[in-house]
Order: sequence, then structure tokens, then C-alpha cells
Amino acid sequence: MKTRRHFLGTAALAAAAAAPAPAQTAGVTRYVRFRKGNLTAQGILEGETIRQISGDLFGAHKPTGATHKLAGVKLLWPCEPTKVLALAGNFKSHIGNRPPFKNPEIFYKPLTSLQNPGDPIVLPPDHKRVDYEGELVIVIGKTAKNVSLAQAKDYIFGVTCGNDVSEREWQNGKEKDVQWWRAKGADTFGPVGPAIAHGINYAKLRLRTIVNGKVVQDESTADLLFNCEQMVSYISKYVTLLPGDMIFTGTPQTTQPLKAGDVVEIDIEGIGVLKNPVVKG
Amino acid sequence: MKTRRHFLGTAALAAAAAAPAPAQTAGVTRYVRFRKGNLTAQGILEGETIRQISGDLFGAHKPTGATHKLAGVKLLWPCEPTKVLALAGNFKSHIGNRPPFKNPEIFYKPLTSLQNPGDPIVLPPDHKRVDYEGELVIVIGKTAKNVSLAQAKDYIFGVTCGNDVSEREWQNGKEKDVQWWRAKGADTFGPVGPAIAHGINYAKLRLRTIVNGKVVQDESTADLLFNCEQMVSYISKYVTLLPGDMIFTGTPQTTQPLKAGDVVEIDIEGIGVLKNPVVKG
Repeated sequence: MKTRRHFLGTAALAAAAAAPAPAQTAGVTRYVRFRKGNLTAQGILEGETIRQISGDLFGAHKPTGATHKLAGVKLLWPCEPTKVLALAGNFKSHIGNRPPFKNPEIFYKPLTSLQNPGDPIVLPPDHKRVDYEGELVIVIGKTAKNVSLAQAKDYIFGVTCGNDVSEREWQNGKEKDVQWWRAKGADTFGPVGPAIAHGINYAKLRLRTIVNGKVVQDESTADLLFNCEQMVSYISKYVTLLPGDMIFTGTPQTTQPLKAGDVVEIDIEGIGVLKNPVVKG
Repeated sequence: MKTRRHFLGTAALAAAAAAPAPAQTAGVTRYVRFRKGNLTAQGILEGETIRQISGDLFGAHKPTGATHKLAGVKLLWPCEPTKVLALAGNFKSHIGNRPPFKNPEIFYKPLTSLQNPGDPIVLPPDHKRVDYEGELVIVIGKTAKNVSLAQAKDYIFGVTCGNDVSEREWQNGKEKDVQWWRAKGADTFGPVGPAIAHGINYAKLRLRTIVNGKVVQDESTADLLFNCEQMVSYISKYVTLLPGDMIFTGTPQTTQPLKAGDVVEIDIEGIGVLKNPVVKG
């Protein structure tokens, strides 16, 4: 635990301060959204300090001059999308012997499924099995329509951590729905954050999921079957992507059920740790 | 054509003025959203006049005193949702011999699929078959979470017309996707409007789809398998509904493909006519 960077809790922050600098610090800006009393704002996270900014995160913005201690604010999901997309079956280690998809397989998560760093994943009263899915999440920076593969990187503002929480009975079980509207879309099934890393090389980042301190997923984003540029270009042929829109890029390896009392962390190198407790609904 | 109420075009408006009053006029308020020059606003439609309002459509709002000729504004989709849900297989006449679903079968349409009254449905360049689906659309009036069946009607602000435009190859064909993200979610695949009818008895309205002047769907909303209150109550068990959120309630009977040059109208008694041309993308 002590060697991972950690945005939640002063003990962890102290540990992070003492830890070696993470990979890709140079040239990387980490944007957060936060609440402090009646203020909701965006800012740039530098160590334990947030430098507040005003304006359009994806356009013209500037420092307000105000700074806040990270420990003194409530972090929120890091920007406000108009839609959230996600990929199914995008790691060889996840699909196993099933043939890979010919095209990126997309679905939607509603905005009401988003959850803040630190806030609970709520198990629906009638759930059977709710699994974690640690994922890299793309944040779109400008309106993308019919974007070529070569241009796609210009439309990616940055990346953050996400947990594509999934109810397996409703997704694949005997009681499965035709579409994954609640399996992937129930309230709190989409934690994201803590920060959007801008300027990072997202093509090769170590992605880990940790449940109750134990690493349960560990793979590089270099293993994504469809890479970030392919996803953005393909989606934009059919569905226009807008600034702030998010794309969950798929989970590696296997997943296991969560139970009330668990704590699940998605830790991506150079981005930070998204940590959420699990509670009974 | 001359006996239907019509929100587009002065000739049609003149015809509407001469036609008998539609059912359920008393106590029904029709809210529209419109653009006029640099102004984007909401208003109440009364005959050929829009009385502009300010404030929260779903909360406190009042007339500004300004009025606009309907013929002098551009109608927009009638409110701005945070999400759009839709039902599959919700008329016996549509599902035929397939068994009815045990629960409402839900999917999402992204906000970028919304289209204004009068604006085109754009056929994607690589589409195979794009069908109309005329539908009643619920507009939510207040935050709904775990709403009982008895309470559900209080959360329904009103209803409007929708066209759940669907690419059948991507939905059901050999090249079908796992989820309907582009089959139901491509840009312009969700025309809605022209008005939200508030105070109407939406449990029994005649719903018609007309392509190039020919009626192609004609059934009462009384035939919905899951009624509006059942949908709202059920969805709200899992996914919180917010003011302005829309629910497409399902299409009756059969559907047929659209081609460039077609004009498709969704005409629901007491609401109005949603009319869109079809163009090549």
C-alpha cells in the first residue's frame, strides 16, 4: 500500500509524499473537480494542493489564484460529461477463448451511474452478483464527428480511472435483460476519478484493481485490443462525441463479486487511485 | 393531411386552424422550446402563438410577456434531458408471436441522437436498413428514485412524440452489435417534439406514423403492455430519473425502412405532429 500514490486520506498522502515519484510526472497535468462548502470548482492537483481554475476545462481557462488543501475538499467525478460510453471485451485476458470482436463493442452508462471518488458503490437490494471492473477511461476534449484514426489523439483530452461496476445476473444470467441498462447502469455503478491526467502517454500504463488491499487485476493498457484512438475514431463515425464525454475502455483478466464492507481501488500509473467502499442498498 | 394538426409550415397551420378542435384541449398545456435569432427559450404554445416563459420548466416559471408567432421560430426538441431511455417490445402488435417480456426491457439513446422537429434524420453512409418507430415519449418532472406504482403519475410531467429510428442490420442482422449503441443511438436517430403536453390523459391517445402522407402505424397508447406508471416505477428501482429525462415507450405494429427523400410524421392525438425529412449522410 505504501508505494502507491493515493488521493484519499492524510496517512496515505503522507506515504505518497515519501514514495518515489511516479512515472510520467513531467508534462502531465492532473485536473480535478471538487466541492468545498458551497463552492464547486475545477482545479489542478499538485501534490497535496489544488490550484483552482475558472473557465472551460476543455477551452480557455486560467488559475483563479485560490488554492485548497486536497485533504480539505470533497473530490467529485472529474468533469461533467453529456454521455458515458464503455467497451465490452477489449482485453484478450478478459475474453479468454471467445473470438475477439471485429469492431469495438460499445454500450452506454447513464450519467446517474457516475460516482465520486470515496463515495459508495451501492449494491441494489435485489442484486445477485455485482463485480468490479477496473478500467482506463478516456475523456474527450473537443467535438468529434467522423474523426480519422490519425486525428483521433487530438480529440482525447486525457484519461482517468473508472470502475465499470456490473451486475452479472442481469447481464448474463437466467434473468438477463436484452440490454445492459441496469447491469451496467444502476445508480453508483460508474465511479470515476480522482483526476484527469492530461499530457500522459496513455498507451502504456499499468492498471491495477485492489480489493481490500489485495491486487485482483494487473495489466498494462498496452494490451487493449482496440486502442484509444481506434475507439474514438470508430465511435465518431456514428455518434458525435462532445467535450467531457467519457469512454470506459474495457477491463482486463477476470472479475469477482463485491460485498458490503469491501473497499475497491482502481490504481492507474500516473493518474492516481480511485477508491470506493461498497455498501448495501 | 388537412384534418391533422400540424406545427410546421403556414399552409398546414391554416389547415389546422380550420380543423375541429382536437381531443383533450381543456386543461392541457403544450410546452415548446424554440430558437429565434440568438434567443433560445421555452414557451407555451397556444394556437399559432408561443407565450415565452422564464424559469424552470419543471419548477417555478412564469410568462415573460413576450409572444412569438409559431411560424417565426425554429422549434427545438422540447426540453433538455440528462438521459433518454427507451422500451423494446412494448406492444403486442409489435412483438407478434414472441412472448411478452416479464419486465420492461430498457435501453439508452444518447443525447446526441436527439433531433429537432423539422430537422433531418440522416442515414449513416454505411447503413443497410433504417426504420421509423413512432412512439409516445414520457417527460419526467421531478427526481424519481424507488417510486411506487401508485406515486409514479406524480413524476410524469407530460408526454411528447418521438421517433425511435433504428438500423435493423446493427440491431438484429448478421453484423449485429451486442448492444444497440449505434442501431438506436446514431446521430439524429431520436427526433422528439413538437410539444410536451402537460395535463393530458396519456393512457389512451391515438398514435399514428405517416410516411409520405400514408398512415403506416395506427394504434392507441391504451395498448402499451407496460403502461407509463409501470415504466417509471420499475426504472426508478435501479436508475434515478431526473427532471427532463425522456422515456420512449415502444412502437406498435410493424415498421418499414426509410429512404432519402421520405418525410416521416409521428402524430399523437392532443400532442401534435413531429415531422422530419430523411436525408443521405
